[in-house]
This record gives sequence, structure tokens and C-alpha cells, in this order.
Amino acid sequence: MSAPKPAASRQPPRGDKKHLGRPGVFLETPLRNPQLNGHGELQHLLTIEGLPREILTRILDTAAPFTEVAEREVKKLPLLRGKSVFNLFFEPSTRTRTTFEIAAKRLSADVLNLNISTSSQTKGESLLDTIDNLSAMHADMFVVRHASSGAAHLIAQHVADHIHVINAGDGRHAHPTQGLLDMYTIRHYKRDFTRLVVAIVGDVLHSRVARSQIHALTTLGVPEVRVIGPKTLLPAQVERLGVRVFHDMREGLRDADVVMMLRLQNERMQGSLLPSAQEYFKVFGLTPEKLALARPDAIVMHPGPMNRGVEIDSAVADGPQAVILPQVTFGIAVRMAVMSMLAGN
Amino acid sequence: MSAPKPAASRQPPRGDKKHLGRPGVFLETPLRNPQLNGHGELQHLLTIEGLPREILTRILDTAAPFTEVAEREVKKLPLLRGKSVFNLFFEPSTRTRTTFEIAAKRLSADVLNLNISTSSQTKGESLLDTIDNLSAMHADMFVVRHASSGAAHLIAQHVADHIHVINAGDGRHAHPTQGLLDMYTIRHYKRDFTRLVVAIVGDVLHSRVARSQIHALTTLGVPEVRVIGPKTLLPAQVERLGVRVFHDMREGLRDADVVMMLRLQNERMQGSLLPSAQEYFKVFGLTPEKLALARPDAIVMHPGPMNRGVEIDSAVADGPQAVILPQVTFGIAVRMAVMSMLAGN
Amino acid sequence: MSAPKPAASRQPPRGDKKHLGRPGVFLETPLRNPQLNGHGELQHLLTIEGLPREILTRILDTAAPFTEVAEREVKKLPLLRGKSVFNLFFEPSTRTRTTFEIAAKRLSADVLNLNISTSSQTKGESLLDTIDNLSAMHADMFVVRHASSGAAHLIAQHVADHIHVINAGDGRHAHPTQGLLDMYTIRHYKRDFTRLVVAIVGDVLHSRVARSQIHALTTLGVPEVRVIGPKTLLPAQVERLGVRVFHDMREGLRDADVVMMLRLQNERMQGSLLPSAQEYFKVFGLTPEKLALARPDAIVMHPGPMNRGVEIDSAVADGPQAVILPQVTFGIAVRMAVMSMLAGN
Repeated sequence: MSAPKPAASRQPPRGDKKHLGRPGVFLETPLRNPQLNGHGELQHLLTIEGLPREILTRILDTAAPFTEVAEREVKKLPLLRGKSVFNLFFEPSTRTRTTFEIAAKRLSADVLNLNISTSSQTKGESLLDTIDNLSAMHADMFVVRHASSGAAHLIAQHVADHIHVINAGDGRHAHPTQGLLDMYTIRHYKRDFTRLVVAIVGDVLHSRVARSQIHALTTLGVPEVRVIGPKTLLPAQVERLGVRVFHDMREGLRDADVVMMLRLQNERMQGSLLPSAQEYFKVFGLTPEKLALARPDAIVMHPGPMNRGVEIDSAVADGPQAVILPQVTFGIAVRMAVMSMLAGN
Repeated sequence: MSAPKPAASRQPPRGDKKHLGRPGVFLETPLRNPQLNGHGELQHLLTIEGLPREILTRILDTAAPFTEVAEREVKKLPLLRGKSVFNLFFEPSTRTRTTFEIAAKRLSADVLNLNISTSSQTKGESLLDTIDNLSAMHADMFVVRHASSGAAHLIAQHVADHIHVINAGDGRHAHPTQGLLDMYTIRHYKRDFTRLVVAIVGDVLHSRVARSQIHALTTLGVPEVRVIGPKTLLPAQVERLGVRVFHDMREGLRDADVVMMLRLQNERMQGSLLPSAQEYFKVFGLTPEKLALARPDAIVMHPGPMNRGVEIDSAVADGPQAVILPQVTFGIAVRMAVMSMLAGN
Repeated sequence: MSAPKPAASRQPPRGDKKHLGRPGVFLETPLRNPQLNGHGELQHLLTIEGLPREILTRILDTAAPFTEVAEREVKKLPLLRGKSVFNLFFEPSTRTRTTFEIAAKRLSADVLNLNISTSSQTKGESLLDTIDNLSAMHADMFVVRHASSGAAHLIAQHVADHIHVINAGDGRHAHPTQGLLDMYTIRHYKRDFTRLVVAIVGDVLHSRVARSQIHALTTLGVPEVRVIGPKTLLPAQVERLGVRVFHDMREGLRDADVVMMLRLQNERMQGSLLPSAQEYFKVFGLTPEKLALARPDAIVMHPGPMNRGVEIDSAVADGPQAVILPQVTFGIAVRMAVMSMLAGN
């Protein structure tokens, strides 16, 4: 019997611990990406920023066969059998939680849903004490949604090596599985990233989705990524991310191969950043007429949930160029791929 | 690999789509019940109204062996293995959700619970967008509870052919699995529907349960269905459903073989429809003294949860004629039967 | 087919029913512990009070191999396959619910989570009607957390013989699995209970954990159990439980082998029982300096969640003597052991 260590002390940062007595390894990987282990394999999925192109491509390649599992009579694989996956939602999101839950269950994992806003956290326990506690229950994987940017990173730095962390959205920072499923969708319909013009439209400022998309697109070699939105909803110096900025939607959509709409969050509409939802729709809502400026075979994407009549016209959302529901389908496969890669399959 | 269609467009109503170019089929089934497929098999369970007697009987016959599963050491069958069942509760109901969850788990399905009042819907997404989204995750079955009458029908009309919908209660309209488990219970204790006097007592006006019961009883050939209640709690022209109306409970119970009590919802008691709970109990509460007017072997049913001392006296609820807990037991078997028939087993 | 009994009547108290016509048996076991069946085996786990030493020891012995399961690649045993375990949380507790859920899932049970404060109970149904209802769904085990002392006992008295009840915390009364995991932890690090000095520190008055610990320690033969706390937070006549009382923490910790800290609940800090959290920490908070008074190899325990800086200093919580996370790990094994013993394995 292997007994737990007689100490509740938190793990020191991984870097310190792993390389004790192994200076050679240390020197070889001084700035190692915290998401990759010593063999360059995915250890956590926290953000697309900094992930090399070959890792992104490997995730997309791994996801492909999982799309077939969903078509089967018995949608079940034993890859995570006997593993414990904890969905830690510090911010409620039925939709996102469901995508991870279904992905994990189809891999035969035991899934535990923890909606934490209403429990331990209100009892005043710290985030890392909660994580230590769940780790001591022999968690294998944490799927983390948190209102604070960096929460998933903090957890990943803290846990032992055999535990894997997936960021399911942290503050305004990142939502990497959304970025990856978007890339899967684009590759499915457009095949070659290196010839595309991709336009991202809307509230880039508050969108973790947009950040993940931009990093993924530039890493995968898309030559022209555009962001389109009012000045109040674009980050200062967004050009530094390698994108072209447009405030005129018609100009920005011209000859685009891919149009990625962002959700306009309700709270923005009531704030001082926008005159009104109607006004916003007139200028930045995607209508058939505006879409006609893009390439005729352009695809239209949206991360959901859609505000019909705010950022997108129903005629477009339900039209032949929309690939919004395939995004959801591919999202399950991408999440199964990430979980299965993290678990070492 | 079979890729999703490159369109997010909603499905047109099934009738339109299926019969394009197949006018012969169209003519043969001009008023086909939306709950049955082209082969007369159960496609959805939305309401008992309009279901032919042979379908009701087939469900009851299918349920019988499932009552044995619950008695086994290992209460588990693989009939829904690898299927994804989504419990969509737009209106909270731990009790009803639990019955479907346990039924689906005993059939080895993956069960996803979505309590939607607090999530996507508050984010402003439409019901059908939510359904499209979950369908894109390769849902196999939706169990739907909704405060609006017709919600389950709307969903059933909308989804693709391989997805099945079970109405777990919609507004005041229907609660068909409750109606079916009531029929199972009556058949278990009384064998022959065609010789019975059945009395339904209470707030028929607001009760989806009562509607489902009346349709089931008349379809199965019960010669005399009575409804008993104050005028304020009976629907106008309820006689049209083929029932006899009584405002005097003693008169209505006379020689009844089956007494089906309805729950009096708390909100009614505070409203203007009733003087008080005490007053109601005096006139329409089922006491041993009133029950004595029914046949000596009459059974007493209640859909739960009971308001003891309001619509039913504890001496009756816990007495030898009550079959209220067997109703619950049979309810699991009936739900397993419906799920397994929908899944094509 | 074995049909349900045609009566919804509540079970009479077990004693009455079981011994009808069997007066001999009745006379032989007039004061039988309600937690043990006629063969002296565990029937329910309600409280540690009154459980004989051999039962406690058997639970700890049974738990030992389950700690190995958690270390495996596939953390799964089929011991509860096809059983239905209902987590009935009338008081919310994500943390405790999770420990039972993970334990049951690793034993392959079907787990149903019912957060009941927001459902049937608000519909006015009585506790025992809820239990009857779930029992009729063929529940095998209830894990019950309730704000009222005695709730789990009431349920255990009420259910049929094949249904097992585990108390997951009732009011101020008991939290027996916490007490058992604490004993497992002490035995793991100290081996022999009969030579130990154990100090329990803090709000004993409001703590169901402390009650369970004291009963377990005295039953297992610990010669000196001390309770340390301000007069306002110790029960009147606590000495009757067989403990020594200290109001001076330094005195009470002297030469202790085990220091068991209690959580100070937030509501106490705002009440009239304590001057302030800071003040409390100064007098009863466990600091390295105070811990130095205990034996050098003393272990420090805490049931979690910790209030760092209130009842415990982070230097201690994260220090080499703390065994707080091993407590959590052992807790899963102990819960698996209890569940598996109750299910008859």
C-alpha cells in the first residue's frame, strides 16, 4: 500500500521540484511552456498562446476520429475508464459544462460536477485549498471555469504532475477549447489555413474567445486576421497581436473566407460602451447584405449562445453559410481529443 | 467520416421535409400523429391524447418485465448503453427529474441534467437554439419539463428523426408518463379497464395530470370516468372530454372502483379560487368516511407530492386501499419501457 | 413478477414489525443498536456513539485495501454495480457530497444527487413521504445530510430492511464518516490507540465532528482525550463524555500525540460567543509556537474547510506535521468501506 505523504503542504512550483538533481534537463528547457511536459507533450490546456503549431495540429488530427464515435450506435470509448474528471465551475455555464461532461462520459470517465460559487468558496476556503482537497480525492483532471483571468494557470502550477487542467474559460483571458474547435471547423471547410482571410467581428475587448481565436489563427499560419468592431469594444493596440483593425464592417468583411461573430454580452448593451442593441445591429450585426461582401463561399461562425437580431440576423444564422451547429459537434470531438491526450492515450 | 452538414439552419417541420417528392406517402398519412413514425411506432411521447389503444397497451406490456429488473441484485440493463439522454428541466422538479434519471441510468444511458432556468435561457437564447445546440452534441433523447404548454411538441417538431422527445410535463397540458403509470397501476390491481368506474377528484382545471388520465382512461375503454371538484377548479365544458361531472364528492365517489386524487397546488390555496385549505379539505379532502362510499375494494391513487390534510387524510394515504407508492415503483418501469421503445428496442 | 404491496402505508418502526410472532428474538435483543442487524453487522451508519470497538476496527480494516484502488490506473470496483445510491442533501455541502459521490462511483453504483431544500420540501411534502417515494424507486442506500439532529435516525427507523442509511452530518449531532476517517488517519500514523494523548481544539459546542471524534477515540481505547476551548464554545458537562477539559491551549497541548483542530464557523465569529476572529486566533489558533508544546512527532488534523489565520496558522496547515490532505484521501477509502459493508460485500 502506498500511503499519502504525511504533510498537507502545497506542492512547490513544478520547475523547482522536477529538476532537483537533474540540472541537464533544467538547462535544456529553461523557458518550457507550462502546458507541455518534458517530452513536449500536452500536460495542461490553459491557453492557445504559446502552443506550437504542431501541438495544435496534433489536437485537430486526434479529434478527427472522435467525430465518428458520435455517429455510432454506442457512443462510448473506454479511454478514460476509472478516471475522475472534476468540472469545477466557479462561474455558472450549463452549456460549457455540458460539452465537457458529455465528452468525458463518452470516454467512460467518472464525472463530478462542482458548482462552487455556492459552497466551499462561500465558506471562505481559498481556491488552492479547494484544489488540494479535490486532488487528495485522487482527481485525474480538472476542467475549470472561473471569472478571474489566470485561475486555471494558478491551479495548473499548483497540482501534482499526474493531474491535468483544462481551462474552460477564465475571465477575459482564454477559452482554448473554443479556439481549437473553431480551428477544427475552419480546417474542415477550408482545408488550408495559409490562404485565408479571417474576420472576427464584435466585442473583442471583453472576449476570451477572440483572444484564443487570434492566437490559434496566427499560429496555424493564417496570413490575414482582421478584427472588426467599434473602438470602445477593441483592445488598445490590438494590432500587436498581428491583426488588421477595421471599424467599418463592410470594409472588414470584403473577400473574407471566414467570418467569426462574437457574442455581445447583455451587460455591455446596458453599459456606456454602446448606444443600444438596435444601433449595434445596424452597424455591426451580420446581415445577408453585409455577408454578401465576403467571398461567396465564406463560412459564418459563432461561439453561441447567439443574440439573434443583435450581433447576427436570423437569415444568416439559419442560412446556408452558417456552420454554427457543426462547431458544436466538432467541439465535443475536440474536447474528447484533448482529454484523451492529457490522459496519455 | 460523416461530417455535419455545413448549415446551422433549423430543420423545416418534419411533414414538409419528409414528403418532398413522395406524394403517395403524404396522401396515405395526411393526419399522421406526430408521436408515431411512418411504421406506427412511438417516435416521441408528448401526450396521451390521440395515441391509439394498442400503443398504450404496448407500453404497459413492455413495462411489465422492467418491474422485475428493479428487484434484481444488479438493477441494470444495457438497452441504452452509449446513448445520451438530456433531462431538460426549464421548471425545477427534483422528484420527476429523479424518476427519469434513475430509469435512464438503469438502462445504462449517459444522463445529462440541465436545469435551464438559470443558464442559457437567461442569456437570452431561444428554446429552439438551445435544442439545436444540444442536438449538435448528438443527443439521443430529450426529457422535457417546461412551464409552457406545447413546449415538448415544439421541440419534437423541430428535431431530426433520430432524436426522441418525452414530455415530462408542459404547463397545464400533459404529463403522459404520469398518465401511463396510473394506467399500469389500475391494470395491475383491477385487470380489466372495461368494467370500471373511475373518479378523479380535485383541481382538474390546473392539472396536466388530470388531462393525461382522462385521455388514457377513455382510450383504454373505461366506461365511466367522473371528475369531482368545485366549479372554480373544473374546466368549462369538461364534459366534452367524455366525463361525468360531480360537485358533490360523496355523490361522485359512490361505487367507484378507482379514486384518483389530484394535488392541490399551494398557489391555488392562497388565490381567490378557494376559501381556505381547511375548507377545501372539509368538502373535497378524501377521508375514510368519504372513501367508504366507494366500492370496498376501491384503490386510492395520488400523483404526489401529497398535501396531507388538504386533499387527502393521512388515514387514507397510509391506509390499506392506497396504492400511491406502487404508483412510484411502476412509474420507473413505465419510463424504462417508454425510453427503450423510443430507442428502438 | 413480484408486485409491490398494495398499500402506501408507512412501515411501522422496525422493532414492532420484525418481531411479530417471534417473541423469542424480541427478548434476546431488547436494546439492539439500530445500526446493527440481527447478526451484529452494520445495517446503517448513523453515529459512532454505541458502535462497539470491533465494528469500528472492522471498518478501518476494510478501508485499508480501498486506499490502493485510488492509486490504480482504473479506479473502479464492481461492488455496488447496479445499486442506486441517493445523496439526499437537505443542507448544501458540495465538499461532503463529492466525497460520497466519488466513493459510490468508484464502487460502480448509480448515484443520484438530490438537493432537496429547493424542491419537494418546499412543496410541503414531509421528510418521510420523500423517503417513501424514493424507496419506491428501489433506492439501495441513502446518504443524508440534514440541518436537524436525528434526521438520519428517523429515516433509518422508517425504511425497509434492504435499504441502508449513512448519516453525512445531522445538525450538531454526528458526522460518523468524518470520525472514522480521523481514526483511520490516527491509526495510520500512530498505530496504537492505547498509548495516545489526543487534543481536540476549538468550537466543540457546535461541532458534530467533535462528538463523533470523542466517541470514536474513547471506544478505540485512547486513554486521554482532551478538549480545549473557551467556555462559551464547550458543552456544559462535557467531562461526562470521558474527556479532560482545558481552557488554556498551551496547557492542553502539552505532550499531545495528536492535535485535532475544529473549524470555527463563520456565524460564530459574528455572534456574541467570541470577541473577534483575531482575538480567537491569538488564544486558540494553532501556531508553530503553540504546536511546539505537543510531542515533536505529533500530527495535526483538520476536517476542512480551514479558516487559515482563524483556527490555524498557514505555517502549521502547510507544515510537516499536518496530515490534513491524507485525511481527505483516507476519507474516500473509509466511505467506500462503509458503503461496501452496508451493501453486504
